[in-house]
Amino acid sequence: MNASEFRRRGREMVEYVAGYLEAIERRQVYPSVEPGYLRPLLPSCAPQEPDTFEEIMEDVEKIIMPGVTHWNSPYFFAYFPTGNSFPSILADMLCGAIGCIGFSWAASPACTELEMVMMDWLGKMLQLPDAFLVERGGEGGGVIQGSASESTLISLLAARTKATWRLQAASPGLTKAAIQEKLVAYCSDQAHCSVERASLVGGVRLKTIPSDDKFAMRAAALQKALEEDKAAGLIPFFVVVTLGTTSCCSFDRLSEVGPLCDKEGLWLHVDAAYAGSAFICPEFRHLLDGVEFVDSFNFNPHKWLLVNFDCSAMWVKNRTDLTGAFKLDPVYLKHRHQASGFITDYRHWQLPLGRRFRSLKLWFVFRMYGVTGLQAYIRKHVGLAREFESAVRGDARFEVCAEVVLGLVCFRLKGSNELNEALLEKINATKKIHLVPCHLRDQFVLRFAICSSVVNSSHVQLAWEHIRGLATDLLRAGPEPKAALAEIKS
Amino acid sequence: MNASEFRRRGREMVEYVAGYLEAIERRQVYPSVEPGYLRPLLPSCAPQEPDTFEEIMEDVEKIIMPGVTHWNSPYFFAYFPTGNSFPSILADMLCGAIGCIGFSWAASPACTELEMVMMDWLGKMLQLPDAFLVERGGEGGGVIQGSASESTLISLLAARTKATWRLQAASPGLTKAAIQEKLVAYCSDQAHCSVERASLVGGVRLKTIPSDDKFAMRAAALQKALEEDKAAGLIPFFVVVTLGTTSCCSFDRLSEVGPLCDKEGLWLHVDAAYAGSAFICPEFRHLLDGVEFVDSFNFNPHKWLLVNFDCSAMWVKNRTDLTGAFKLDPVYLKHRHQASGFITDYRHWQLPLGRRFRSLKLWFVFRMYGVTGLQAYIRKHVGLAREFESAVRGDARFEVCAEVVLGLVCFRLKGSNELNEALLEKINATKKIHLVPCHLRDQFVLRFAICSSVVNSSHVQLAWEHIRGLATDLLRAGPEPKAALAEIKS
Repeated sequence: MNASEFRRRGREMVEYVAGYLEAIERRQVYPSVEPGYLRPLLPSCAPQEPDTFEEIMEDVEKIIMPGVTHWNSPYFFAYFPTGNSFPSILADMLCGAIGCIGFSWAASPACTELEMVMMDWLGKMLQLPDAFLVERGGEGGGVIQGSASESTLISLLAARTKATWRLQAASPGLTKAAIQEKLVAYCSDQAHCSVERASLVGGVRLKTIPSDDKFAMRAAALQKALEEDKAAGLIPFFVVVTLGTTSCCSFDRLSEVGPLCDKEGLWLHVDAAYAGSAFICPEFRHLLDGVEFVDSFNFNPHKWLLVNFDCSAMWVKNRTDLTGAFKLDPVYLKHRHQASGFITDYRHWQLPLGRRFRSLKLWFVFRMYGVTGLQAYIRKHVGLAREFESAVRGDARFEVCAEVVLGLVCFRLKGSNELNEALLEKINATKKIHLVPCHLRDQFVLRFAICSSVVNSSHVQLAWEHIRGLATDLLRAGPEPKAALAEIKS
Repeated sequence: MNASEFRRRGREMVEYVAGYLEAIERRQVYPSVEPGYLRPLLPSCAPQEPDTFEEIMEDVEKIIMPGVTHWNSPYFFAYFPTGNSFPSILADMLCGAIGCIGFSWAASPACTELEMVMMDWLGKMLQLPDAFLVERGGEGGGVIQGSASESTLISLLAARTKATWRLQAASPGLTKAAIQEKLVAYCSDQAHCSVERASLVGGVRLKTIPSDDKFAMRAAALQKALEEDKAAGLIPFFVVVTLGTTSCCSFDRLSEVGPLCDKEGLWLHVDAAYAGSAFICPEFRHLLDGVEFVDSFNFNPHKWLLVNFDCSAMWVKNRTDLTGAFKLDPVYLKHRHQASGFITDYRHWQLPLGRRFRSLKLWFVFRMYGVTGLQAYIRKHVGLAREFESAVRGDARFEVCAEVVLGLVCFRLKGSNELNEALLEKINATKKIHLVPCHLRDQFVLRFAICSSVVNSSHVQLAWEHIRGLATDLLRAGPEPKAALAEIKS
């Protein structure tokens, strides 16, 4: 395909994309396909000779789209939102065309430098302390990672290295393995599974701290665990505070836990994957109070800030903590400016070597929306969640299961877990809207997350009427929800 | 920005992208900017109110492009190629619009299933053994990772888990830490730095095996190290074979090392990041002989198969080796089909949770080029490398430093390292072409990698004439290259 054919096909794709997103609510949000649906629809080998673009686009509509879960549909209320906006898609087109791999400053100076400035812009929007901002002369700085999971892992690894060096400096005879065996990481019992995975990868123990009645980790509970572990000869080194948990968007008490970690000399990482975007609004910024005690902080603009996946924003208070843990310098990656000390080579900040020019997405989105536009977007979602919450509270058969702070409502029918499992099964089987569940303590709970960039009050109301109707059917079916469940599953 | 404005701006961006790539050779391949150039050209904060699209695109040309290293320029001969093609850019637009996050089958069935089929297609193009192909009923399968670094790390971690379980089964009293302390990974002294980083992350020892005179790891040298380590009470568990090293595109002897690893019960990972694409040509497939002994195999279609970053193809012989090492199943990610056993939930195959619909890029590229088109592309690059090699061999002042197998030529002026450093400095200072160096043993060597999708014989010839001319200047400057070097650096 040469440039002039691309001009034609590119315009066609722009039209397809515009049409897809414009009319997305007319598509069934969750697909009707069964596992294995696709393979019989495709040849078993790649074609020897080229197919035409028309054939491919026909297949997109005919065989791909029927198997897609439409995350951008206004009837999608599952998981958490995934960022999507036209400015971000435009920036990604440019990113693809430039196609530079920004592992070092020299590999594409603009790629590194725009990222540094955009992370400062974003840090200022969040009112991060100066230590995190390069422009303010801080010793920290920001970097775009691929995901919150990677940010947690990298933080844990950097903390592990730092703790090991400190302990070896104090007791030169200690081996790495002897130290690692005793290191303990901590998170709330509501933390994301990626924290457990990070501890598995890092080969360290993880202790989960019981959260309080608001599903928040408190300093007292953490302190108790620290004391116990130290008494048992273990070495606490790393704490993850979650702001906006996946299950119910609860907030660990950063302003309590921060000072404790500071006093104990523990690396404190904040995972605000979903909720972080809201901190650009002054009325939600207090949720980040205590960030001055944090060593590393991460959230995903690719969730709730209209930036397409992947774009996970991470800041560290001291950049040498990261680069010290990972720095390797083969000759083929050395360049003239490297020794100057004024250079950021982002490969030392992340696990992969390669990286896309992802800051273009932030730049386009910030400029095309403006801060006020982004704040308005967050507020719209929070408002819709409050609207749904009111509706739930207005129906005595239902209960709200956790405080609604941002765009997620956890709710359930008063009654058994089986009843609620049956309700969710019914909801997802009819495929008008899509939700996923969670467990809060022993309760099976439905999560209603405001996700789509085009969702509005009418979709939320329709969703609620639909849920209410299904609940009525279910309750009418009798006192034995298992029968109803069996009926649905058959 | 609504859909109708996106139609307009999307067409403008298509035009910009087409124009950029069409005329890329008129841009200076390596930028003239100094570190810190960008920040003064940008506001210090994000705008409160939206800017216009015109303003952004003006800035792209005015302040971003002057800082870009143009990886797709036909005068770019540095590092290794980065994949770039119009079909891939089109697929990525569609991927952005769909914007699903494919961590589980249910999160978007088409995303998971197309990836499974595309990895089978690609595996068949490479003539991988049936064990790696899902369609053939193998116990393995393919997955798209973000980078070769991640593939190496994941393989090492899976191997670590497997070894730990095996040893604990044999000696139930052994702790993980006691085992980990003794585990040893192996790679050639020519392996990529990501292997060392994987060993740091995984907390295991790494031993580098001296390569032979062709920069290849041989079975005898590996066996010697294994014997020594076992005699010292250590536990070998993981070997990385590199096919197409970063420094000089040498090939470890897989057909020798494979049987040895098999006999010793070691996990064998193959890193063919760059070279793997060439194995779709029958005449290069022999370089992969021995793959039947491999536990995990990885290469980057985003390097040399016209697919834009990121798209790193990885296969394992036994998928439970991977999923066993990482599986965590929170309620909010469970879905109805999960228990069936027929489902692939790719989140268990990788470190991050989120993932883009990257298989669309493979699908578009395979179909728009056909296998013959992709083979022709590989052959064109190899032919151009041979052409450059002939030119170097035709000039008695130069020498070729490693066998030219694919698209990389390692060469140098006969003489001191300082002389060659001076030559490279001169080449990159004039910014007509861009190269990076490597060390082969104690020699400073220039790497000439065929990279761009639009490079042809005339560019290679111009590059060679340019290098020759600079060499002539340098040699004329006298017998003391340090003076010449100082002059260039001033």
